[in-house]
Amino acid sequence: MAPRPDSGFVYFVGAGPGDPELLTLRAFRLLRTADAILHDDLVSKEILACANPDATIENVGKRCGFRGISQEDINERMIEFAQCGLKVARLKGGDPSIFGRLAEEIAALAQAEISFEIVPGITAASAAAAAAKIPLTSRKSSSQLIFLTGHRAGGAPIEIPLPTTRDSTIAVYMPALEYKELAERFLAAGWPINTPCLVVSTASQSSQQILAGNLGDLRFRQRLPSPAVLILGNVVTGTRFAATNPAAACSFQGQS
Amino acid sequence: MAPRPDSGFVYFVGAGPGDPELLTLRAFRLLRTADAILHDDLVSKEILACANPDATIENVGKRCGFRGISQEDINERMIEFAQCGLKVARLKGGDPSIFGRLAEEIAALAQAEISFEIVPGITAASAAAAAAKIPLTSRKSSSQLIFLTGHRAGGAPIEIPLPTTRDSTIAVYMPALEYKELAERFLAAGWPINTPCLVVSTASQSSQQILAGNLGDLRFRQRLPSPAVLILGNVVTGTRFAATNPAAACSFQGQS
Repeated sequence: MAPRPDSGFVYFVGAGPGDPELLTLRAFRLLRTADAILHDDLVSKEILACANPDATIENVGKRCGFRGISQEDINERMIEFAQCGLKVARLKGGDPSIFGRLAEEIAALAQAEISFEIVPGITAASAAAAAAKIPLTSRKSSSQLIFLTGHRAGGAPIEIPLPTTRDSTIAVYMPALEYKELAERFLAAGWPINTPCLVVSTASQSSQQILAGNLGDLRFRQRLPSPAVLILGNVVTGTRFAATNPAAACSFQGQS
Repeated sequence: MAPRPDSGFVYFVGAGPGDPELLTLRAFRLLRTADAILHDDLVSKEILACANPDATIENVGKRCGFRGISQEDINERMIEFAQCGLKVARLKGGDPSIFGRLAEEIAALAQAEISFEIVPGITAASAAAAAAKIPLTSRKSSSQLIFLTGHRAGGAPIEIPLPTTRDSTIAVYMPALEYKELAERFLAAGWPINTPCLVVSTASQSSQQILAGNLGDLRFRQRLPSPAVLILGNVVTGTRFAATNPAAACSFQGQS
């Protein structure tokens, strides 16, 4: 790649939950025209199939530990492409601003004086709520929505919000913990055992699965494939935990 | 409208922040093919211009008080259209699941035995972060993201989270309060006066404005047009409050 006289540009593009139909028009157009696409592991192959066929496409996902790609490697690769004058799409699952490790990459671009734009995407909690046919907030019973992540810098433990306001909805992104451990941390923080919750795995994709029940039930369930979101609070209709396929996912809604 | 033998269907469609390019592909296609579109006040005219030209389009926004449309009126209208066999798009700003008064409308449809789907949209906080070129979370300084609304049922006061965890980002949706009152409530709850914050008004639209500064500054600023989001926390680079136009919106980023 010979450097071009014009300077490159980086687009942080939100890939949404996986279904290409849930890309924004802008994200779709950028994928069709990018020269280089650097994507995370969790970006679906259906979305990668939308890419410009002439683009250089690289998986810079860090979750496959064996590949050993560090954040520094990702930053370097992104800067290298941009400094060659390329239009770079840095493609991240969901919305790049939410648990997308965006801060590190923005800082690296700023230091290299490379311009960028953030193209927002559908975040996992919104996709999970749509899949489960529930709202995340309710004027009557849930006026706050709290997003947490199971992954923290240096392996710090997830911070569980206190159940002081019962009218909150909690969304835990990609719980890396076993469900038993996660549920027990909420219980230890004082959340009632019958707090309704559900887990949505690979929302919007053909592999989508939904578990619905309460904190007590959650302890006895096995982990579903990533990406997954746990939603907890009054917005979740309380039913016994049961694995569902997409078609049956929302049968409990009828009982509300 | 003569009832058709096939039964109608309601799509709760997220319109995103206003720029039609930030519609999802699915939302765009549904707008092109819906028979009836019931939309909120805050849905931009650029988005309505994407609609099927043969569709019946009605503004059922409640914010223009003089029009006096109640939630019951909206529910009735939606059910009436669906019972005529129409494909109804109930178009809401942002993501329908987040502060979209979705619970009431889902309950009404369930009672009328009308099927529905939720089509997620870009929520205002994601659009605001993209506009301001900041992440909403950071592995090092912000592992929680809390969404609040200025509007609560029965005019209940907004509940301010305690500043016990300094590593949270707060996003307040459409602060109806004067900024002075809002800032003072955060200060009264113990948030430091130099907590960085910014307000993004009409994110993604040509009228977009961004104010950046800290809680202390916020008290002395006039309200920007709705929809607006206040973002507060370490993810916001601390600068003095200054109105910006979209082109200059992120000049402070270079200083970080």
